[in-house]
Amino acid sequence: MSTFGIVGAGAIGSGWAVRTLAAGRDVVATDHAPGAEAKLRAAVDRAWPAARRLGLLPGADPARLRWVDDAAAVAVAASFVQECVPERESVKREVLAKLDAAAPPQVVIASSSSGLLPTRLQADCSHPERIVVGHPFNPVYLLPLVEVVAGERTSPATVAAATATYRALGMHPLVVRREVEGYVADRLQEALWREALWLVTRGVATPAEIDEAIVYGPGLRWAGMGPAAVFHLAGGDGGMAHALDHFGPGLDLPWTDLPPPPMTDELRAALVDATAGTPPAELRDDYLLAVMQALRPAGLGGGRTVAEHEGRRLAATAPSRWQPGDQVPAPLELYRCRVEPEWVDYNLHMGESFYLFAFGWASDALFRYVGIDEGYREAGHSFYTAESHITYRREAASGDPLRFTTQVLAVDEKRLHLFHAMLDDDGDEIATTEQMLLHVDTGSGRTTPTLPGTQRALEAIAAAHAALPRPTDAGRVIGTRR
Amino acid sequence: MSTFGIVGAGAIGSGWAVRTLAAGRDVVATDHAPGAEAKLRAAVDRAWPAARRLGLLPGADPARLRWVDDAAAVAVAASFVQECVPERESVKREVLAKLDAAAPPQVVIASSSSGLLPTRLQADCSHPERIVVGHPFNPVYLLPLVEVVAGERTSPATVAAATATYRALGMHPLVVRREVEGYVADRLQEALWREALWLVTRGVATPAEIDEAIVYGPGLRWAGMGPAAVFHLAGGDGGMAHALDHFGPGLDLPWTDLPPPPMTDELRAALVDATAGTPPAELRDDYLLAVMQALRPAGLGGGRTVAEHEGRRLAATAPSRWQPGDQVPAPLELYRCRVEPEWVDYNLHMGESFYLFAFGWASDALFRYVGIDEGYREAGHSFYTAESHITYRREAASGDPLRFTTQVLAVDEKRLHLFHAMLDDDGDEIATTEQMLLHVDTGSGRTTPTLPGTQRALEAIAAAHAALPRPTDAGRVIGTRR
Repeated sequence: MSTFGIVGAGAIGSGWAVRTLAAGRDVVATDHAPGAEAKLRAAVDRAWPAARRLGLLPGADPARLRWVDDAAAVAVAASFVQECVPERESVKREVLAKLDAAAPPQVVIASSSSGLLPTRLQADCSHPERIVVGHPFNPVYLLPLVEVVAGERTSPATVAAATATYRALGMHPLVVRREVEGYVADRLQEALWREALWLVTRGVATPAEIDEAIVYGPGLRWAGMGPAAVFHLAGGDGGMAHALDHFGPGLDLPWTDLPPPPMTDELRAALVDATAGTPPAELRDDYLLAVMQALRPAGLGGGRTVAEHEGRRLAATAPSRWQPGDQVPAPLELYRCRVEPEWVDYNLHMGESFYLFAFGWASDALFRYVGIDEGYREAGHSFYTAESHITYRREAASGDPLRFTTQVLAVDEKRLHLFHAMLDDDGDEIATTEQMLLHVDTGSGRTTPTLPGTQRALEAIAAAHAALPRPTDAGRVIGTRR
Repeated sequence: MSTFGIVGAGAIGSGWAVRTLAAGRDVVATDHAPGAEAKLRAAVDRAWPAARRLGLLPGADPARLRWVDDAAAVAVAASFVQECVPERESVKREVLAKLDAAAPPQVVIASSSSGLLPTRLQADCSHPERIVVGHPFNPVYLLPLVEVVAGERTSPATVAAATATYRALGMHPLVVRREVEGYVADRLQEALWREALWLVTRGVATPAEIDEAIVYGPGLRWAGMGPAAVFHLAGGDGGMAHALDHFGPGLDLPWTDLPPPPMTDELRAALVDATAGTPPAELRDDYLLAVMQALRPAGLGGGRTVAEHEGRRLAATAPSRWQPGDQVPAPLELYRCRVEPEWVDYNLHMGESFYLFAFGWASDALFRYVGIDEGYREAGHSFYTAESHITYRREAASGDPLRFTTQVLAVDEKRLHLFHAMLDDDGDEIATTEQMLLHVDTGSGRTTPTLPGTQRALEAIAAAHAALPRPTDAGRVIGTRR
């Protein structure tokens, strides 16, 4: 595929390099700052794992980045040039004029400017029709948005070519209808940021609290729905039209220092008409849950709240912990649940991996019973599963109640051999699993003896379960005729 | 636990009902609108699955919602009352005064107002010290944010009690330092919305394009990091201080009609100091990827872009279906993927059930290779797994690349005995699975012969794989010393 040219290798330029290399393109780049090539290659290496996780296209290879001496060399080597020099009109105009003088006229030259007017940027070029703004967002290799803004002399063919190029890179090009300083997204961000600065100035909230007010609330929504869709949903059955009529006067409240535009019939109609394709409200819950779950590993915003809530829930529902002298039921029954809607596959039955997922919760209940909780794990110990054997007897459908019996088959200082049965309400087996777990030091990943309190509890269970019959599914070999 | 009172059962009131019932509370509610009780109960039923997915606390039960005739009855039954009547000061003041007259003085009365001044809301109460604003965000049962705003006469004890109550409901209370109309989050949203209205008015973007400009860009960031954290990251190594010095003049650009506050030394210091706890930039990539993946099932914003990109990637890399006469690779290599963020457990490693989940996709790739696709299944046939044996060798972390080799050990007319290995980039084994699958008539659930084309393909694979060494993990019995 054709070569992508980059002039200016700061955060934006290196972001473009990662995105284009990940799309399997040849890339040629330059920047006159000292050490710029080494910095760019280091930045590409740093971001490459994230780009890989997003999905590389065939041929993607950081080695396909070629460094050249100056902008003119980029202009002759590339079929599409992205200018990424500092955000000063005079600097950008000079570089764009250089590129324009050197590049064949069919080469599109896009500026990464975040707010300058393309009509002014193209003013010094002899082929202004191929100059366009393509404004990306940090990190360029992950965020899909790129604003495409034409100047007065930009040709429609250039806009079409830039849009197609960006789409092939996995981006979401947004063609801005009329050039204004700051285009669309940055004007919206800037309005919010100015209000934030006023709130800090007036002592209403600290910057950290401003961030909390976004990430635990509106920000979660904005990850999936924009302000118009959110406003439309707030209108209930009446949608945007009702929301405008109901909340419309709110626009006159002293809620920001930004004067609202007059609510003309035309503006109202434009807003209402735009809601035709809004996804149904039910989808909102699905994606908000998914986004909050997605934010859990990073411990950010709603993900943190959800994790804390889960901790409280587990603490509140945990079976009591075994104490020396306690009778151990044989078998143990420590866990119940229902088949969750998202465990169900295209056959409308619980997917095979979710049997094991549910068995994992039964193991978790056993762990709590023997004293393995967050504290035990934070101190650097845990049981890891070395081997699982699952026997599937029956299907289970969404909402079906499940209960679990647990039998400890054997235990030594580092190993736990256990057996769970998954039963329906009548006590009939839906599935069983036999598992071997190893007690590990989670820091080193090596096996290590179980801590004494937990070891005593496991031995008490093994002793109480010694008299139970061995489950017929235990010790199975796959492939033996039954 | 104590009873939670709700007055006003529209979208906000019913949202509070779901959140409090899901937390295992008794709830007493009223609303004088005709049919309000039936509407509320229907709204609770609709939202209950989402609340369940977020995690119910013990005792959670929609049946614990009790309907009473008027606000006074709520006031005497509840230990905490949440007022949710329409957003008009006169209406709210009247209801709050009624509640204040009827409730014992230790009962906290919170208003769900989204912008009115609590000092004015508490003006007609004889116990104004227990009146406070607790402003939630739609949907109340999912979004964590609740702004706690005190009036001039609200006691610190009331703020503390409201904050504790909301936290126990799984919310993130934000205490607003000084009462202003619109508080914090709605002022920020309103500033953005006013700018959006100007952009629509001026023909720069349609409302749908405004939404695109948010959800494909800044909105993805705002799900996990607020504007101050984003600005701090934009400053690179120099952080917020550098960003303010570098972009500071940008505040004077004509980018919104909202005048910026003067950048005093105090404001600058407050902004820079607030960045101390900002998560590292590396986390940003992790959560942006996870959020975009989380938005995929709903087909929203960045999730849609990622899915489309994945489609292009799969089309570029998909194995073709086996045709008679084709050479069969031994073993087959039909599937690659990455460890998804949501496959990772509290140990930050891939959860044991997700090994099996990923193996399921490897089986799916084998199915497609032998002609089992949506059409085959819709015609009433499928392979069901009867037994799986997994051997876990190594951990895998979020984002790790996985590839799979597949060996057919045996096949007869109704059974498929197969073996997958999950490998890392260097070809080292992460896990293996041995599985016995049965070919079933999905209507009756009974085994039935595999259809001829697929049977021929499976036999061709088995023949090609007959010469492969039998995997050492095949035929394992758990508990045998290695």
